[in-house]
Amino acid sequence: MTDFTSQAPFFLGLDLGGTNIKAGVVDDAGRSLSRVTRPTEADAGPETGVDNLVAAGRAAVAESGIEFDAIERVGLASPGTMDIPAGMLLDPPNLRGWNDFPLRDRVADRLDKPTTLQNDANSAAFGEYWVGAGRNAHSLVFWTLGTGIGCGIVIGGMIVQGEHSHGSECGHIIIEMDNGRLCDSGQYGTLEAYASAKSLVCRCHEALDAGRDSALNPKRSEGVEITPLVIGQAAEAGDDLADELVMDTARYLGVGSTTLMHTIDPDVVLFGGAMTFGREETELGRRFLERIRQEVRTRAFPVPAEKTRLEFASLGNDAGYIGAAGCARRDFLAK
Amino acid sequence: MTDFTSQAPFFLGLDLGGTNIKAGVVDDAGRSLSRVTRPTEADAGPETGVDNLVAAGRAAVAESGIEFDAIERVGLASPGTMDIPAGMLLDPPNLRGWNDFPLRDRVADRLDKPTTLQNDANSAAFGEYWVGAGRNAHSLVFWTLGTGIGCGIVIGGMIVQGEHSHGSECGHIIIEMDNGRLCDSGQYGTLEAYASAKSLVCRCHEALDAGRDSALNPKRSEGVEITPLVIGQAAEAGDDLADELVMDTARYLGVGSTTLMHTIDPDVVLFGGAMTFGREETELGRRFLERIRQEVRTRAFPVPAEKTRLEFASLGNDAGYIGAAGCARRDFLAK
Repeated sequence: MTDFTSQAPFFLGLDLGGTNIKAGVVDDAGRSLSRVTRPTEADAGPETGVDNLVAAGRAAVAESGIEFDAIERVGLASPGTMDIPAGMLLDPPNLRGWNDFPLRDRVADRLDKPTTLQNDANSAAFGEYWVGAGRNAHSLVFWTLGTGIGCGIVIGGMIVQGEHSHGSECGHIIIEMDNGRLCDSGQYGTLEAYASAKSLVCRCHEALDAGRDSALNPKRSEGVEITPLVIGQAAEAGDDLADELVMDTARYLGVGSTTLMHTIDPDVVLFGGAMTFGREETELGRRFLERIRQEVRTRAFPVPAEKTRLEFASLGNDAGYIGAAGCARRDFLAK
Repeated sequence: MTDFTSQAPFFLGLDLGGTNIKAGVVDDAGRSLSRVTRPTEADAGPETGVDNLVAAGRAAVAESGIEFDAIERVGLASPGTMDIPAGMLLDPPNLRGWNDFPLRDRVADRLDKPTTLQNDANSAAFGEYWVGAGRNAHSLVFWTLGTGIGCGIVIGGMIVQGEHSHGSECGHIIIEMDNGRLCDSGQYGTLEAYASAKSLVCRCHEALDAGRDSALNPKRSEGVEITPLVIGQAAEAGDDLADELVMDTARYLGVGSTTLMHTIDPDVVLFGGAMTFGREETELGRRFLERIRQEVRTRAFPVPAEKTRLEFASLGNDAGYIGAAGCARRDFLAK
């Protein structure tokens, strides 16, 4: 329970991931009143997934102390690809077998609440915009750094979701058109192909295979799996290659951020997700962010280079369900 | 004079360029009632420039047959850099010496009309959105291809002008981060560095200097200046190098358009400006557009690749002043 007076109306936020569902009740001021996590069991198919969404949602409401009837609307964040206006999943690579599934209406029917569907990265961006590190901004670009590179853009409260629900898919902007690396979606030279966790690991193996000296060599020989965490730990321990790989990642993100500063020109660019190397809590995290800023200063026009804030996001794993609740609140208020 | 009944309210559009000013009266339906062109005399400084803007505007009103008092508001398009909310030019490379000049208020005072300032490419995008090739779209990206690469983005009637008046500066998105070409603004690997008229000419000289066989070789030796027009004519006459240079330009624009389709995901991407190789009127222009589309099909996600229209713009040189008038109309209606 919370130590402040919660403020009606209340919204239920659901954040559907390939592995877990996060759910929470959020009040009118964007405060989270509860938070639960449940396995998605995505491989068991969408009907089981909906069962789990409903169970997670009901558990979150129970934990919040708010009556279920007091929930005005549900916000649902999901990975794409999707058709947002239709409430449909289309061909989501992280939810195999959930193709052409009417996710929004199935959840709305089961919970008997009007439901707002939004892309997961867009939802997280909206959460940061509403009550996170972008709460004082008029516009923001939010990067979520993980296995892939997600992105959400908000301008004056409007999520740039696009005409075909492919807006803000900026992990797939092209930063190296010729001889570029290949990303999971089959595209060459995209930001994701360079700056995702998967790319970091891949670049590490390439460097080791090419004979680069590194403390990661004996680790790999011992059978330790090379992950962003392992690379980050090596970088923190002073390993030159690991440090270079992390700073290269920051450089790529600086390039992509410059492109968005010359497109959206937001107040703030935020970096969230798992692959933020300890954020401002560690020296490596601070240097990672500073390296992004340095690349932007080198490449962007002087005015945005000087004025645009580049910061870590602040809501962590809560951004998705809080933002989904915020999207539900926006639709509720628009009635 | 026009052969239809013009429709109040009326707006005066002014399009300030480095060489010429275009001015016209535009009615409530976006129809142009007059159109005049005057030299800017930019080198004579901003006060002379304002004299010429005022003279062009008054001439356009006189030619339209509309009473000057019936003009509700003035829309003014200008090259940047600028501070749009403040109505100021900052450091415009195409208007040398006009630094830190309060352009909007000077024009408003001289014409005694409320005046809306907007970036020139944004204005042209808004014109195409209002009454041009984007008139049935909810959102668009508009490229203006010339000495540089201008861009304007409109989403649901909102111009993406950015928080620091650097929105939609997508000539300066980065398409080749490493070992990229250099553009006039001093940035490496930008779209402008690859796809501008200046880059086309530069790439042509590089190829000729490298010994490439082409009908442009003897031309250059005879002292013919290599321009996009000359290159286009050679391409139309079957010169392989010239054709390759034009199609490379299209390829770069396909890369940049893909990045924007993964960011904005608009209904339509439009190509306007001088360097469109005869547009749909010539076989070269048609192949140029088809090459852009082909690159997008190769690179973009399937849904936007299939659904996004890529077309030539339709208003030509009138887009700027019509769009500026449209911006003035929007501000007038918002009162």
